[in-house]
This record gives sequence, structure tokens and C-alpha cells, in this order.
Amino acid sequence: MPRVSAIGEHALVERVRARVGAPPSWVALGIGDDAAVFESERGTLNVVTTDSLIEDVHFRRRWTAARDIGHKALATSLSDLAAMGAWPRAALLSLALPAELSLEDFDAIIDGFASLGQVSGATLVGGNITRSPGPLVVDTTAIGAVKRRSIMRRAGGRAGDELYVTGTLGAAAAGLAMLTDATDRNELSPAASGCLARYERPQPQRRCGVVVGRSRAARACVDLSDGLADGVRQLAAASGTGAIVDAAAIPIDAGATQWAAGTSQDPLEWALSGGEDYELLFAVSPRKRRALLAAVRRCPGVSITRVGRLTTEAGVWLETGHERRPLGSGFSHF
Amino acid sequence: MPRVSAIGEHALVERVRARVGAPPSWVALGIGDDAAVFESERGTLNVVTTDSLIEDVHFRRRWTAARDIGHKALATSLSDLAAMGAWPRAALLSLALPAELSLEDFDAIIDGFASLGQVSGATLVGGNITRSPGPLVVDTTAIGAVKRRSIMRRAGGRAGDELYVTGTLGAAAAGLAMLTDATDRNELSPAASGCLARYERPQPQRRCGVVVGRSRAARACVDLSDGLADGVRQLAAASGTGAIVDAAAIPIDAGATQWAAGTSQDPLEWALSGGEDYELLFAVSPRKRRALLAAVRRCPGVSITRVGRLTTEAGVWLETGHERRPLGSGFSHF
Repeated sequence: MPRVSAIGEHALVERVRARVGAPPSWVALGIGDDAAVFESERGTLNVVTTDSLIEDVHFRRRWTAARDIGHKALATSLSDLAAMGAWPRAALLSLALPAELSLEDFDAIIDGFASLGQVSGATLVGGNITRSPGPLVVDTTAIGAVKRRSIMRRAGGRAGDELYVTGTLGAAAAGLAMLTDATDRNELSPAASGCLARYERPQPQRRCGVVVGRSRAARACVDLSDGLADGVRQLAAASGTGAIVDAAAIPIDAGATQWAAGTSQDPLEWALSGGEDYELLFAVSPRKRRALLAAVRRCPGVSITRVGRLTTEAGVWLETGHERRPLGSGFSHF
Repeated sequence: MPRVSAIGEHALVERVRARVGAPPSWVALGIGDDAAVFESERGTLNVVTTDSLIEDVHFRRRWTAARDIGHKALATSLSDLAAMGAWPRAALLSLALPAELSLEDFDAIIDGFASLGQVSGATLVGGNITRSPGPLVVDTTAIGAVKRRSIMRRAGGRAGDELYVTGTLGAAAAGLAMLTDATDRNELSPAASGCLARYERPQPQRRCGVVVGRSRAARACVDLSDGLADGVRQLAAASGTGAIVDAAAIPIDAGATQWAAGTSQDPLEWALSGGEDYELLFAVSPRKRRALLAAVRRCPGVSITRVGRLTTEAGVWLETGHERRPLGSGFSHF
């Protein structure tokens, strides 16, 4: 199979266009021009976010299938849109490619990106391809829409609000730990596959973000891309409150707990600081608790758990039965 | 001065927010949330483009001031918007930073980006910051607006259309050659400064793209980020025509010609294949020639030159007085 350097930039763009297919009618101009042109959805605001996946920081080519790299690049941005209550419409993909990358891997990255785009409604409308002298860099911009009344921001929380998280936490970090420890991923037990999938092909809470946004049950929301501790800190800081998280209430993923039992690692740490779970954290007034639970019930397969509350007193704390300790600051990219 | 790694991702985002200042009223949510939220301009379509500047591919930190890196990252995307006839409104900046980058350089990158944003109307509304294990990567997404009737696309040209370019060509490539040849940039003669500025702080034809788009004088347009040869090829290919360029008519930059005289380099090659001039190439029906010239007269300081025509016969040719040769394919990123 030839390398990407053998066919050049324009041929690669044509290859993407062929794999992605024709865009919907609201896209006036898609892949292949100097820029893409599309209509907004009537009565909505534009929501835009950008994220990078960088080789040897966010993934290793040795571990991660090329298709999963494409999937994850878009998933990260879709999670950000969900946290705003927005639904995805369009995406841009900016690739910096090592010259020796195979065309097979290139195609797989595009396919992973485009197929998540297809199921989520994010049409790939454009991008950029260039050479990288070092790591593979996959930069995504996702553009969504939201009605003004449904926007969830970080800053909306108030002291007394309850904190809820979707799904389970720590699974992605456990998946990463499995890959780090394994000499051969094929030797991993079938029981590991749940955590591996959470790490390699995260499924952002797209529908849940939109449904909760529309219900107006949540006063604030962030996604948990950098772990629960970081999410709580961000939300509390933006809202001007403190926060307390109840360690016993955190919905640690069962697969993560099981895997941790055989190692010296603490699954609570994975949930707090591992990141990449792409679940959502909501701040909800106690009066809106029923509305929140009703909204989440409309999202098949999504669980929701109360894990703490926002407080008047400053500081962000983890409560473990008999004591409090400061909540760590989560995964940092530096 | 400390390094970026000393203060971490969140503090860097806060730093950007402080430097950029408050956004205009149509931005519902700017820097600091999971995504940015903003209103479209009534009666317009959204125009989006993304571009990468990668260390040691597009710039060298040894040569290029950090402020110019930020400027150029946005300029590249603004040129793409101009080629569509669109005006800029918002921008996203995704940075992958080597841990040893100084905070001083970080601030300068932001300032270069934001100050071009300010004069051009592109408000920095969000982005992403992460660590790079290798090169500094600056990824820009620019979002503009255009009325449907003013969109200029690559594919609109027809055989018989005349080809026009704005400004002068080859200056940026000459600037790059000067830097490559110089042992010390302070030794470069003052006469070199024009070409250096074109390379280091390109000024995209923002106004001219919008004015010509509105005038509906041009049937097609591309920007010349990868040189005249590439631009003509792209436009002709998208339009399903051939093209002939008259070598003698190409407006080669006087500074480039002067510099080349002292070297073995050919300024015509710079104009054709050097790229990074960020001028615009228009395809214009002869009937619309006057309308084009009238539109360009409304753009102070912008010259326009007829350099060739689109043809029925296939192939893209350079005519040099007594012979024709195939037009090269311009700068390729591979």
C-alpha cells in the first residue's frame, strides 16, 4: 500500500470527498473549495468547538487502530457540543500527516471520522491536509446548533444545586491502563473489552445533552473529558461556588473496578482524574430533580447518578465517609 | 520568563481570554466554555475554513517572530474566506505547544492572532490548548458570512473567461529565500524588507474578495496560497476548462526581481510555485471586465492584472512569447 506522500495533497482531498459522499442540501459548498458554505438552522445559534488529538500525547499509533483515531477525534468535539445542549451539524478535519503514513491508515482515519459523523449528523464539509515532520495531528472543528433557551453553560450553577453525572466513570482510564500494561493486546481477557472500547471508541452523550438542554432542568453542564475532578472544579469556578463530591456515590465503572482489583491501581483515581470518559456533569436545582430524571429517561441506555452538590463555602472537596480532602485537579495536558 | 508547561492549560486559556477582551454582542458565549456560541448574520450563509501552521514545515521558530506566527495563522484562513467573497466574523485557535515554549512567545502568538482578528473583524471565540511532543502546531478555524448571490466558487469559470490576479507575486517566496540564504537576518538590506514582510506578515485581500463578490463581476475565484500555477490548475480543473497563462503578463514583485538578480534564482518560478502570496485569482467574463476593474478601484492600494484565460482545449499552459510549456503544479505540502 502506498504512502500518503506518494499521492499528494490534492489527491488526498479528492479521496476524502469520494469516501464522504454528497452533503445534505443545506450545505451550499462542501469539500474541495477554499472554504465550505452552509446555512444555519432557523431559530438557532451556532455552537463551535475545536480539539486536537496528537500522537504520543492522546494516542499511540502502535495501540490505536487508525479508524479509532478518526472516531475519537470527532467524538471529543461532539462531547463538547453535547455539554452545551447543542446538536452537531458540520465538521472540519485538519490533518498533519507523517509522510510515511499509509494510504490504508489515511482512509481508515477518514472512515472512522465520517461514520461517527454520519450517525451523529455531523457532515464533514471541509478541512486541510498538510505534512507533519513529527507526530500525526488530527484537529477537529465541530459546528452545532442550539436554541437560545436551551444553552447550558458552565457558569449557570448556584450553591445548593445538586451535581449529577451520566453513565459510569473510570472506564477509559482503565482501558488505557490495560494497554499500557499489556505486552500484547490480544492477550487481554474478553472482560477487558468494555473498558478498551470506552477508551478507543468513546460514545459522547450527544442525545442526552440535547434532551436535558431542551428540558431546561440543568442550570450548568460540562463534559468530563478531563475527569470528574476537573469537571467539578471548572463548573464550580465558573459558577462562583464551592463543591462537595461524595466519593461513595461516584458511579465507578464495574469493568474498571474489576481490572483494578488485580493491580495496585485505584479505580476512584481513574474516575476522578483519568479523563476521557466523555460523560456529562450537570448542576441541577433540587426543584428540577424530577425534570432531570424524566429527561434522562428519554435517553435509552443512559444512567444518571447524583454525586455531590455546589456549596456557598469556597473550595472543592471530596467527602469519603469520615473525612474531607481537596479534590485533585484532574488530567492536565501539561 | 516561565514556560507554558509551568502554568498549565486552564491558566493559559485564562491568559488568552484576558488578552483578547470582551466579545461583541452577537457572541453569546466566548472563550472558556466547552464551546463558543454565536448568532449568524441575518440573510447570510456561514463560511468556514481551517488551516494549519506547523513548525519546520510552514515556519521556523528561529526565523519567525512568535507574533508573526500568530498573525500568519489567521491570515491564511482569512485569505480563504476572501476567496469565497466572505467577510470574517469569528475564529478558533487550536494550539499544540512544546513544553519549553516561553510564556512570552505564547503571549506574542496570541497577540499576533488577536490583533489581525481585531482589524479584520474575526473575533477569537474559542479554541484548544494541548501539549506537543514535537513541533509547535497552530491550527486556525475562521468563520465568515456571505450572501448567497455573492459566493465565488472555484467551479464557476467558463472557457473564454479572463484570468486576473490581485497585487504582485513571488514576494513571499523571495522573502523565504532571503531568510534561507542569510546567516543573520539583521544583515539583510532595507530593500529586502518588503519581501520579508510579505512572507512574515501576509495581508490577505479581505476587502477585495468581498467587494468583487458583491459586484458579481467574477465567475470563480481561488486564493494563491500555493502559487499561481496551483491556483490556475485548481480553478481550471474545478471549472472543467483548460487555461493559458501569459508569462510576460505576470505581475512579479519588483523586490523579488531585484533580489533574484543577485542570485541564481528565477523570480518567475517564485511567482508560479513559491506560494504564500495570498493574492486572489479571478475568472471573469470579458463582458464583466469593466465591472471587475470598477470593483477593484474601490479597494485602496490593490492592483489587478490580467494574466491569462480559460480555454476550451484541455491542459494548463504557460505561454512565453514563442513557446508553450505545461504550467507546473505549484507548491505541494508533501
